[in-house]
Amino acid sequence: MFVKRASKKAGLAPGTLMYLGEKREAKVKIKIMDYDQHHLEEKEVGSVQECLPFQHTDTVSWINITGIHDMETIRALGERFNLHPLLLEDVVNTEQRPKIDDFEDYLFVVMKMIYPARYEHSVTHEQISLILGSKTVITLQEFEEDFFEPLRERIRKGKGRIRSLGTDYLAYALIDITVDNYFHLLEETGEQIETLQERILTDPTPAILGEIQDLKREMIYLRKSVWPLREIVNSLIRGEFKLVSEDVILYLRDVYDHTIQVIDNIETYRDMLSSMMDIYLSSVSNRMNEIMKVLTTIATIFIPMTFLAGLYGMNFKYMPELEIKWAYPAFWLVIVVTFIAMLMWFKRKKWL
Amino acid sequence: MFVKRASKKAGLAPGTLMYLGEKREAKVKIKIMDYDQHHLEEKEVGSVQECLPFQHTDTVSWINITGIHDMETIRALGERFNLHPLLLEDVVNTEQRPKIDDFEDYLFVVMKMIYPARYEHSVTHEQISLILGSKTVITLQEFEEDFFEPLRERIRKGKGRIRSLGTDYLAYALIDITVDNYFHLLEETGEQIETLQERILTDPTPAILGEIQDLKREMIYLRKSVWPLREIVNSLIRGEFKLVSEDVILYLRDVYDHTIQVIDNIETYRDMLSSMMDIYLSSVSNRMNEIMKVLTTIATIFIPMTFLAGLYGMNFKYMPELEIKWAYPAFWLVIVVTFIAMLMWFKRKKWL
Amino acid sequence: MFVKRASKKAGLAPGTLMYLGEKREAKVKIKIMDYDQHHLEEKEVGSVQECLPFQHTDTVSWINITGIHDMETIRALGERFNLHPLLLEDVVNTEQRPKIDDFEDYLFVVMKMIYPARYEHSVTHEQISLILGSKTVITLQEFEEDFFEPLRERIRKGKGRIRSLGTDYLAYALIDITVDNYFHLLEETGEQIETLQERILTDPTPAILGEIQDLKREMIYLRKSVWPLREIVNSLIRGEFKLVSEDVILYLRDVYDHTIQVIDNIETYRDMLSSMMDIYLSSVSNRMNEIMKVLTTIATIFIPMTFLAGLYGMNFKYMPELEIKWAYPAFWLVIVVTFIAMLMWFKRKKWL
Amino acid sequence: MFVKRASKKAGLAPGTLMYLGEKREAKVKIKIMDYDQHHLEEKEVGSVQECLPFQHTDTVSWINITGIHDMETIRALGERFNLHPLLLEDVVNTEQRPKIDDFEDYLFVVMKMIYPARYEHSVTHEQISLILGSKTVITLQEFEEDFFEPLRERIRKGKGRIRSLGTDYLAYALIDITVDNYFHLLEETGEQIETLQERILTDPTPAILGEIQDLKREMIYLRKSVWPLREIVNSLIRGEFKLVSEDVILYLRDVYDHTIQVIDNIETYRDMLSSMMDIYLSSVSNRMNEIMKVLTTIATIFIPMTFLAGLYGMNFKYMPELEIKWAYPAFWLVIVVTFIAMLMWFKRKKWL
Amino acid sequence: MFVKRASKKAGLAPGTLMYLGEKREAKVKIKIMDYDQHHLEEKEVGSVQECLPFQHTDTVSWINITGIHDMETIRALGERFNLHPLLLEDVVNTEQRPKIDDFEDYLFVVMKMIYPARYEHSVTHEQISLILGSKTVITLQEFEEDFFEPLRERIRKGKGRIRSLGTDYLAYALIDITVDNYFHLLEETGEQIETLQERILTDPTPAILGEIQDLKREMIYLRKSVWPLREIVNSLIRGEFKLVSEDVILYLRDVYDHTIQVIDNIETYRDMLSSMMDIYLSSVSNRMNEIMKVLTTIATIFIPMTFLAGLYGMNFKYMPELEIKWAYPAFWLVIVVTFIAMLMWFKRKKWL
Repeated sequence: MFVKRASKKAGLAPGTLMYLGEKREAKVKIKIMDYDQHHLEEKEVGSVQECLPFQHTDTVSWINITGIHDMETIRALGERFNLHPLLLEDVVNTEQRPKIDDFEDYLFVVMKMIYPARYEHSVTHEQISLILGSKTVITLQEFEEDFFEPLRERIRKGKGRIRSLGTDYLAYALIDITVDNYFHLLEETGEQIETLQERILTDPTPAILGEIQDLKREMIYLRKSVWPLREIVNSLIRGEFKLVSEDVILYLRDVYDHTIQVIDNIETYRDMLSSMMDIYLSSVSNRMNEIMKVLTTIATIFIPMTFLAGLYGMNFKYMPELEIKWAYPAFWLVIVVTFIAMLMWFKRKKWL
Repeated sequence: MFVKRASKKAGLAPGTLMYLGEKREAKVKIKIMDYDQHHLEEKEVGSVQECLPFQHTDTVSWINITGIHDMETIRALGERFNLHPLLLEDVVNTEQRPKIDDFEDYLFVVMKMIYPARYEHSVTHEQISLILGSKTVITLQEFEEDFFEPLRERIRKGKGRIRSLGTDYLAYALIDITVDNYFHLLEETGEQIETLQERILTDPTPAILGEIQDLKREMIYLRKSVWPLREIVNSLIRGEFKLVSEDVILYLRDVYDHTIQVIDNIETYRDMLSSMMDIYLSSVSNRMNEIMKVLTTIATIFIPMTFLAGLYGMNFKYMPELEIKWAYPAFWLVIVVTFIAMLMWFKRKKWL
Repeated sequence: MFVKRASKKAGLAPGTLMYLGEKREAKVKIKIMDYDQHHLEEKEVGSVQECLPFQHTDTVSWINITGIHDMETIRALGERFNLHPLLLEDVVNTEQRPKIDDFEDYLFVVMKMIYPARYEHSVTHEQISLILGSKTVITLQEFEEDFFEPLRERIRKGKGRIRSLGTDYLAYALIDITVDNYFHLLEETGEQIETLQERILTDPTPAILGEIQDLKREMIYLRKSVWPLREIVNSLIRGEFKLVSEDVILYLRDVYDHTIQVIDNIETYRDMLSSMMDIYLSSVSNRMNEIMKVLTTIATIFIPMTFLAGLYGMNFKYMPELEIKWAYPAFWLVIVVTFIAMLMWFKRKKWL
Repeated sequence: MFVKRASKKAGLAPGTLMYLGEKREAKVKIKIMDYDQHHLEEKEVGSVQECLPFQHTDTVSWINITGIHDMETIRALGERFNLHPLLLEDVVNTEQRPKIDDFEDYLFVVMKMIYPARYEHSVTHEQISLILGSKTVITLQEFEEDFFEPLRERIRKGKGRIRSLGTDYLAYALIDITVDNYFHLLEETGEQIETLQERILTDPTPAILGEIQDLKREMIYLRKSVWPLREIVNSLIRGEFKLVSEDVILYLRDVYDHTIQVIDNIETYRDMLSSMMDIYLSSVSNRMNEIMKVLTTIATIFIPMTFLAGLYGMNFKYMPELEIKWAYPAFWLVIVVTFIAMLMWFKRKKWL
Repeated sequence: MFVKRASKKAGLAPGTLMYLGEKREAKVKIKIMDYDQHHLEEKEVGSVQECLPFQHTDTVSWINITGIHDMETIRALGERFNLHPLLLEDVVNTEQRPKIDDFEDYLFVVMKMIYPARYEHSVTHEQISLILGSKTVITLQEFEEDFFEPLRERIRKGKGRIRSLGTDYLAYALIDITVDNYFHLLEETGEQIETLQERILTDPTPAILGEIQDLKREMIYLRKSVWPLREIVNSLIRGEFKLVSEDVILYLRDVYDHTIQVIDNIETYRDMLSSMMDIYLSSVSNRMNEIMKVLTTIATIFIPMTFLAGLYGMNFKYMPELEIKWAYPAFWLVIVVTFIAMLMWFKRKKWL
C-alpha cells in the first residue's frame, strides 16, 4: 500500500536494476513451453542461457521465469534477448504501475496478479511482466503461486484454438487468466461484505470498522490495477500494435468486457462499503439513544419519588402529615400512581 | 449483486459454455413467430432443429427461447445458426454486462430485464440476449415471465408499422419494451420512497435505514444496466451497423431519450435517498436532544430539592430550624417557588 | 418528481398518444397571431380546423394551444399539420425531458416552464412544446397561466425587431421568456434561503430540515430542466438547423448565456443549502452540548452535597459529629464553600 | 450572491436597458487617455459626446466610464460608438457572467473586480466591461474605487512597453490588473483562515462556523468569476480574434497562468475550509465527551455512596449495625476506600 | 500554503522582477559543468559574467545557480543569455505554478522540489527553474540543499549515457531527480500514516486530527506540484518541442510513468487519511457510548435502590414494616436480588 524503498533510486542512472520487492531467497525457476499445432516441448531449465535455442525456432516459445529478485538472471535475460534497459528496470520495480510499452520488436506489458494470501484477510499483489515477441513470449512473476497451470494444461491437451494460433493469442490467454483471477478476489470480497452486513446489525463493534476500511483499501488497490489494464487492453484492441492480429482482437474484446465488469463491481462494492460505514455510524448513535432512554426513564421515574421520600424523612418538629394514620398508605398510592402514569407516558413516547 | 461463480471460469478456454445463473429445472421453451405484411405463422416447438425451416424464408422470423440453463440447446443453436462461440459464452453468462457486438452477419445485444419479484421488496434481474440477423431475430431469456406478449399481440393484430418493417424494427420494439419496463421499476421505487419519507418523520427506526440502503442498491444496479444500454442504443443511432435502417433509427432515437430519462430519474432518486439518510440521522440526534432535555429538566428540578430535603433529614442535635413552627410550610413554599421558577426557565429555553 | 403512469405505455406501439399529466376538464383554447411588418391578425378559435387558413400564408403564424389533455385535438393537429406520430407522443407525454428534434420541415423543441404555484412553497412544472416551421410556430402548453402575454403585447405594439423577423426570432423570444422565468423561481428561492438562514440560527427545528430538502429538490428539478435546454440552445447556435438564421443566432447566444447563469446560480444555491444542512446539524449538537452542560453542572454541584446531607441523616448510635454544637453551621459552611468553588470551576471551564 | 431583480426583465424585448445593480446617485465620470509613443493627452469630460474626437485618431484612446446606473449615458455611448444593443444590455446587467463576445469591429469582455469592502468581513463585487476596438478601448465600471490608477501612472511615465503597443496591450494590462486584484482577496482570505485555524482550537464557538461559511461562499463567488475569465483569456490566446496581435498573446499567456494559480488557490482554500468544518465538528463532540466524563465520574462516585448513606438513614427497628460502636468509622472507611478505588479506575480509563 | 505578497505586484509592468520568497542573506552560488564524451570541466564562479565563455562552446554546459533572491544576478543572467523578461519574472516568483514555456531558442520549465524540512513534521517547497538551450542548461534553485549532486557524480564518472547525449538528456535527468524526490516524501508520509493508524486506535486525541489535516494538506500541495509537471512531461513526450530528441523521449516516458505513480499514491493516501478521519470520529462516538453505558449502569442500579432506602427513612408514625423483625434482612434481600438481576440484564445487553 505504501511507497517503499523507491526513494533509494533517486539520482541513479535510468536502467539501473534495483529490486524493490521483499527480500527473497528462493531460487529462480525457468519453465519453457515450445509448441505449434503438431509439436510440443516442455522443459524446466536452470539458466537464461538454456532458453536461447528456443528463441529462433518457428514455433511459439513461452518462457516463464519465477522470481525476479535475482539481478543476475534479469541482466542475462536482457543481454540474451536484447531487451531495453528501461524495460528491465520496470520488470524488477515491483511498484510499477500496469502499463504497455512498444519497443518495435516486442511489446512489454506489466500487470498485477492479486489473490487472497494464505493467512487470513490479507491479499498478495504480484507483478507479472509479459514480453511479447513475434515468436517468443516471456513472462516474469514474483512468487511460486502458479496461476498459469490451467493454460499449460490447455496447451498440453491442445484444447481450444491455442495451439494453432501465435504468440499474440498466448499473450491474450495470459491476460485473460490475470483478469479472471480478479473475479476470485471479488467473489471472496463479496462474501466478506455479506458477512459484515450481518454482523453490523447484530454486533456493531469498532473492529468491524477496521475490516470495512481494509476491504475499501483492497478495492482501491484492485482498481489501481484494473484501470490501467483496461487501458492496455483497449490499446491492444484499437490495433495500435502490429504484433497483435485481427483474430486475437476479437478475443481481447472479451477481456476488455471483463475488465469493465471488474471495475463495475469494484464501484458497487465501494458504494456498499460506504453505506455500511454509514449504517455502522447510525447504529452507534441508535445505541446511544437506547442507552439514554434507559437512563432517562429510570431517572425520571425515581428522582421525583426519591425527593418525596426524602421530604417525609425530614426531621421538622411540626409536620402534620406524619401523624396521620393513612398517610403512609396514601404515600404509597401516590408513588404507585405516579409510577404507572410515568410508564404510560414513556410507552406513548415509544421509549419502552 | 455479488460476483458469484464467475471465478470457476478462470483458465478455461474462451468460448467454453458455463451457465452462471441459479440452477433451474424448467424445460426450455421455444416460440416462433414468422410474419410479413400478409402472412403470420406462430408456433411453439421443442427443439432448435425445428426452427431451421424458418431461417431462410424471406419473412421476418422471431425465435424466442426461454431458459438458458440447458447447455445442449445453446450449443445446438450455435451450430445450427452458425453463431460465434464467444457469443454463446456471453448468452449463458448471466453476469454479462449489457453490450453490443457486431459479428458481420448479425448483431448481438445483451440487455437486462429488471422487475419487481413476486415476493416483497425484491427485484429480479433477467438477462435478455438478442441476436439480430437480416431475416431472423433470436431472443434468449432466463425466466418464464413473458414481457414480450404485448408485442406478440401487436404483431398478431398487425397494429402499428411492425408487420411492414423488417427485423431491425422488431429489435427496436424489443429494446423499447425492455426500457419501458425500467419505468415500472422506477414507479414502484418512487412509491416506496414516498412511503419511506412519511415513515421517516413519524417513526425513524433503524429498519428504515436498511430499506433506504436496499433502494439505493437497486438504483445502483439499475444504473449499471441502463448506462451501457444507452451506449448500445447510441451506437445503433449513429448508424454504425448496416443491419439497422434509417427508418428505424428515428424510433431508436425515441428509445435513447427514454434511457436518458431513466438515468435522470435514477440520479434524482439517489439524491433523494441520500437526503433521506441525512434526515434520518438528524432525526436520530433530534430525538437524542429530546431525551436529554427530559432528563436534564427532571434532574435539574429535583436534584437540588432532594438535597434540601436531605438537609433537613440530618440528625444534628442543634438544628434551630427544625424547632420552628412555620419551618415546614416555609420549606414547602421554597420548594414550590423553586419548582415554578425552574419551569419558567425551561419554558423560556424552549425545553418544555 | 416521481415517475408516474409512464409504465402504462410499456408494450404499446410507438406513436400511441397517451396523456401522462393530471386529469383535467378544462376546455382546450387555441390562440392565433398572424403578423408581418405591416399586418397583424389576432384570433381565438375553437378547433384545429380553423387554424388551417393561416398555415400557408407568407406571414408568421403563431398558434398557441393551451391544454394537451384532449387527445382529439392533438390528433387533429397531427393530421392537419402533417406532424410525425413520435412528435405527438412527446407532446402529450408530460414527463418528456427537454429536447430538440429535427424533422426536416420543422424543428420540435420541448421545454419546461417552472413557476411558483399558487399555494405556498410549491412549484408547478409545465411542459411547453414548440414546433418551428418556416412560416408557422405552434406552441402547446398544459395550463392556463399565460406567460407569453408580454410577448403578444410586444408583437401588438410592434416593439423591438419581432415584427420584422421570421418564425425563428419568434421561437427565440419564446425560449427567452421560458429562461427568464427561471430567474423568477431563483429569485424566490434566494429569498427563501435568506429567510431559512436567519431561522436556522434563531430556532433550528427539524421542520427547517424538511424545507431545506424541498428547496434542494426544486433545484435538482430545475437543473434537470435547464441542462438539456442549454444543450438545445447550443445546438441552435452551432447553426445545425437551416430554419434558424444567422441574425437570430446572435440573440440565441444571449439566451445561452442566461442558461449558464441559471445553472451557475443553481449550483451556488445547492452549495448554500448543503452548508445550511451542516450548520443545522452542528447547531443541533451545540444545543446538545448546552443541555449536557446544564445537567452536568447541576449534578456535579448537588450530588456530592446530597451525599453529605444523607451522611448526617444516618441513624448510627455513635456519631460524635452529631453532638457537636457548631457542627450544623460548619456543615453549612462546607456546603456554601463547595458551591462557590464549583461555580468558579465551571466558570473557568466556560460552562456557565 | 442571490439573483435579484433579474426577473423584472422577463418578457422585455432583447436590448432593453435595465440597470440591475443597487440604486446609486453618484454622477457618471468619464476619463480619457489618448496616447502613442510620443504623445499623451489626459482629460476628464462630462458627457459621451466629448469623447467622440478621440475615436478616429490614430493614437490609442482609452475611455473609462465610472457609473453605469445612468441609462442616458449608456444609450448615448451605444449610439455614438455604434455598439450593439445586446452589448449595452450586458453592460448594465450587473449580474452578467464574465464573457467575451466578438462583434467583428470590436471585442466585448465582461469581468468581475472583487475586493474587500470598506466595512469588515465583506466583499464588493464590481462589474467591469471592456470594449476593445482597433484604436479605442472603452472600460465601464460601477464604483469610484480606482484600481486602474497604477496603469495610468505607467502610461504617463511611459514605463514598460505600454506606450509603444496598441489597444490590445492596453486590454491585456486591464485584464492583468483585474486578475492581480484577485490575489489581494486571496491574501486576505488566507490571513482570515489562519486566524480561524487558531481560534477553532482555542474557542470553538458556533460563530466560527458562520465565518467559515462566509469564506466558503466568497471562494465560490470568486471561482464563479475566475473560471469564465480563464476561458476568456484562453480564447484570446488561441488567436481566435484578429484584434489581438501575436506580441500580446505572449503576455496574455502570463495572465492565463495567473488565473490558473487563482483557481488552484481557491481549491486549496476550499479544501482547508472544509477541513476546518470537520475539525470544528469533531471538537464539539470532543467537548461533549469531556462534559460527559465529568458527569459520569461524579455520578459514579457519589450515587452508590449516597445509597449507602440512605441505607443507614432507614428507620427499621431492628438494624443491628446501628448499635455497633465502630460502625460509623467503618462506614467512613468503606466510603474513603471506594472513593480512592474509583479515582484510580477513572485514572486508568484516562477520564481524569 | 497561503498566497503571500503576490498582491504587491498588482499594477506593475509585466517583467518587473520581484522576489516573492522569504528574505534571505545567503550569497548566490554558481556552479558550472561543461562536458562532452571526452572532456569535463567543473568550476564554481562568482558572477554570471564568468559563465559566458561556456555559452558558445560545442560541449554541454550546465549552469546551476543557487539563490534567486538577488535581483542583480537574475537581471545579469537575463541580459547575458538574452532571456525574455517574463521568464525572469517567473524565475523569481516563488509562487509560480509548474509550467513549460517555449521561447523558440530555449525551453523554460518551472518545477517544485519538495522535501521534508530539517525540523519535525514540516516540508520545504523549493522552486526549480530549468532553461534548456541547444548547448546550455541553466538551473536556478532557492536553497543550498544539493539534490543534483548524484547527477554531477554520474557526469564525473561518465556513468550511464549522460556524457554521450545532449542538453535534452541532462534536462531529462534533472526532471527525473525531481520526481524521484517526490517518492522520498511519499515514503515518509506513508510511515507517518502507519504510525497515526496505530495511535488512532490506542489513543484518539484531538491532536491526531491536526496531524491528519497536516498530511492531507501536504498531499494537496504535492498534487498541485505533480499534476502540472505530468502535463509538462506529457507535452515533452508528444514531441512538441524541437529541442527534445526522439532518443530522450523514451526516457521521458519513464518519468511520465513515475509522475502517474506519484499521483496514484497521493490519491491513495488521501483516501486513507479521509478514512482515518472517519475512524477517529467514530472512535470518539464509541467512547461516548462507553461513558454513557457506565453512567447509565450506575444510575439504573443505584437510583431505585436509593429511593427504597429513602422510603424507609421516612418518619411517618404508622409504618408497619418498620416494626417487623425480619424487615431489615428482607430489605437487604430485595437490594441484592435487584442488584444481581440488573447486572444480568446489563450483561445480556452487552453493556458490561
